[in-house]
Amino acid sequence: MKRNVLIIGAGGVAQVVAHKAAQNNDKLGDLHIASRTLAKAEAVIASVHEKSAMKVAGVFKAHALDAMDTAAVAALIRDIGVQIVINVGSPFVNMTVLDACIETGVAYMDTAIHEDPSKICEIPPWYGNYEWKKRDATKAAGVTAILGIGFDPGVVNVWARAAADMMDKVHSIDIVDINAGSHGKYFATNFDPEINFREFTGTVYSWQGGKWQENAMFEIGKTWDLPIVGPSKAYLSGHDEVHSLSANYPDADVRFWMGFGEHYINVFTVLKNLGLLSEQPVVTAEGLEVVPLKVVKAVLPDPATLAPGYTGKTLIADFVKGEKDGKPVEVMIYNSADHKEAYEEVGSQGISYTAGVPAVAAAILVAEGVWDVGQMVNVEELDPRPFINLLNTIGLPSYIKDDQGDRLLQYEI
Amino acid sequence: MKRNVLIIGAGGVAQVVAHKAAQNNDKLGDLHIASRTLAKAEAVIASVHEKSAMKVAGVFKAHALDAMDTAAVAALIRDIGVQIVINVGSPFVNMTVLDACIETGVAYMDTAIHEDPSKICEIPPWYGNYEWKKRDATKAAGVTAILGIGFDPGVVNVWARAAADMMDKVHSIDIVDINAGSHGKYFATNFDPEINFREFTGTVYSWQGGKWQENAMFEIGKTWDLPIVGPSKAYLSGHDEVHSLSANYPDADVRFWMGFGEHYINVFTVLKNLGLLSEQPVVTAEGLEVVPLKVVKAVLPDPATLAPGYTGKTLIADFVKGEKDGKPVEVMIYNSADHKEAYEEVGSQGISYTAGVPAVAAAILVAEGVWDVGQMVNVEELDPRPFINLLNTIGLPSYIKDDQGDRLLQYEI
Repeated sequence: MKRNVLIIGAGGVAQVVAHKAAQNNDKLGDLHIASRTLAKAEAVIASVHEKSAMKVAGVFKAHALDAMDTAAVAALIRDIGVQIVINVGSPFVNMTVLDACIETGVAYMDTAIHEDPSKICEIPPWYGNYEWKKRDATKAAGVTAILGIGFDPGVVNVWARAAADMMDKVHSIDIVDINAGSHGKYFATNFDPEINFREFTGTVYSWQGGKWQENAMFEIGKTWDLPIVGPSKAYLSGHDEVHSLSANYPDADVRFWMGFGEHYINVFTVLKNLGLLSEQPVVTAEGLEVVPLKVVKAVLPDPATLAPGYTGKTLIADFVKGEKDGKPVEVMIYNSADHKEAYEEVGSQGISYTAGVPAVAAAILVAEGVWDVGQMVNVEELDPRPFINLLNTIGLPSYIKDDQGDRLLQYEI
Repeated sequence: MKRNVLIIGAGGVAQVVAHKAAQNNDKLGDLHIASRTLAKAEAVIASVHEKSAMKVAGVFKAHALDAMDTAAVAALIRDIGVQIVINVGSPFVNMTVLDACIETGVAYMDTAIHEDPSKICEIPPWYGNYEWKKRDATKAAGVTAILGIGFDPGVVNVWARAAADMMDKVHSIDIVDINAGSHGKYFATNFDPEINFREFTGTVYSWQGGKWQENAMFEIGKTWDLPIVGPSKAYLSGHDEVHSLSANYPDADVRFWMGFGEHYINVFTVLKNLGLLSEQPVVTAEGLEVVPLKVVKAVLPDPATLAPGYTGKTLIADFVKGEKDGKPVEVMIYNSADHKEAYEEVGSQGISYTAGVPAVAAAILVAEGVWDVGQMVNVEELDPRPFINLLNTIGLPSYIKDDQGDRLLQYEI
């Protein structure tokens, strides 16, 4: 049993985590949120109170924190007495926050793989470059560290495990992420443009035939027949979960498919080909050194401003093929979130909603001891059943479609 | 009779002017070139000598000059003893250079309308905003000032006058500018991107039915059937010559049409809609204030680097309709330049070539007294015949197509 939670970050996902944690503060205890800019953390708490989201009377405090500073993170953890840290700050701070959790012996979780700000699209093994190097230290300290417990990575890994548990052998895992929503702007990214574009500027790695296959972004497209949003074009993309799932299911093909509209691809292609997505500085005729990507970020709408006008739905699905009792089996497990409903509930759009709610579900399972495993794990290494059941009750129900029909995925435990 | 020429600027057009002036230095006398950066001016002269372009032995000197400083320009004019200034620097320096010419009593010519760096796409009357305010001062000083004597504006104005002189009444003047060449890059502008994009980011003004008509860029497109390059799509655009021609032929419709490929339009549209063509500074997340357009300029290829690989042809034409002896008449006057041939002759691509050669032709006519009119004029106010005949001999022949066929336009004077 662990109590009291520190949320690191104050962006769209942190907003969701804060609201969802508040809605479950009877199980989680005191809540804290820390951001480089105190006012941003305070604004998140104000929004929680505005919606009267706290389930029971309790603590919710804001703190200013440089999360790149391990000693500062450790000092805050000790000072406020939290046992669970939910890191939903920039992916640049994963390692410093993880180190602080190991040092203080508290549970850690995040929703995206660590990134070095100076490197774009590192080659596999991604987790092996940073997080997995701390496996031994985490185990020695008895610290629970759950890597990538947003939606993708996160729920999709849990689904892959759940589907694999229904089979004797897994042949392929295809994860499809479609945002069929509309923000009504000419162009905008749903997360920080700097992070968002970094996902798509390099080589696309997928795991096929027992080895890494390399493709260019937008090289391989496929139209998927999906519930709720209908047939949707998605493109083979690199993504965190491809790495951990391929390590845990090395005999299966593991692919990630991201949905993009033609307009997004066109704008992205123009910016990329012109060199405007580069993180390498250029010098203007006037001698000013500037990183083009940071200027693109400056002219694009702040993703946080998109939520109020966002309409439509997300659809994320795992297609898992394998065999059971010598016969081929195929299941699709999926969820759909509604942007407008998410905004009404927690003040963020659906994509932040799907990323933030799973982290809170994991925190509840750690608090209850169910997932408090005392070591570093990727999500598919944990029992998927209590997590799927819990998500069904807190806003992200999982549905399964197979030869027995299309229904809620719910376990008897 | 005037002698000795100062070229201001050291870009692609200045390069052409320098070579063409050198090829005609028997008529022009001493040559000088001044640029903010001395090395750029020296590089132009080196290229002239490399091609052995000087017709007769003579002076060609480079000078460092801040052309925004009238006193400095006047001092240089007096110091080196020139009687003709060809201003092919940035359009931001027109007024300071013109003032220096009025002060020193020497002839002035330029190839583009004055622009204030802080204003984009000013509303008509464009010449009236700056240059024409100096008409009286120019006349009082007996100074010849020829405005806009590149190709467009410039030769196209001369052609309009030549066509008008063939008619009793002019109904319409349509100027069509097509670059059917290829620089082989993903995207590049043929002039300084900052100047190039400024032409297309505002309202498009055309003169129709005796008044200004306003349209959006790329709103009105038309496919023109052209010699050499074939049918070509061009879009109603604002351009310097629309203003002066509409003032001199107020009863005619005056329109300018610029050819754009779909790819150019797409890139332009993406950049414009994202706000990346703005000259208004934005602030990055790191607090750096930066003008997006200057960053776009920094990532695009330097137009000066395009020339060596440029292939294909330009085609610029005037379509003039009117009546003669009560019957409708219609003429097309046109020129086509070849990028590769231009590069081989003067080290610049065809677009710079067409802009630079006419200025030298005008300088020769001023030197010979033919166009030395002692006042400020737009080009269509001058006798077109000696100019067209001279251009036929120095690299830019004019062709005319009417009901009598398609032939070189050459005058018996």
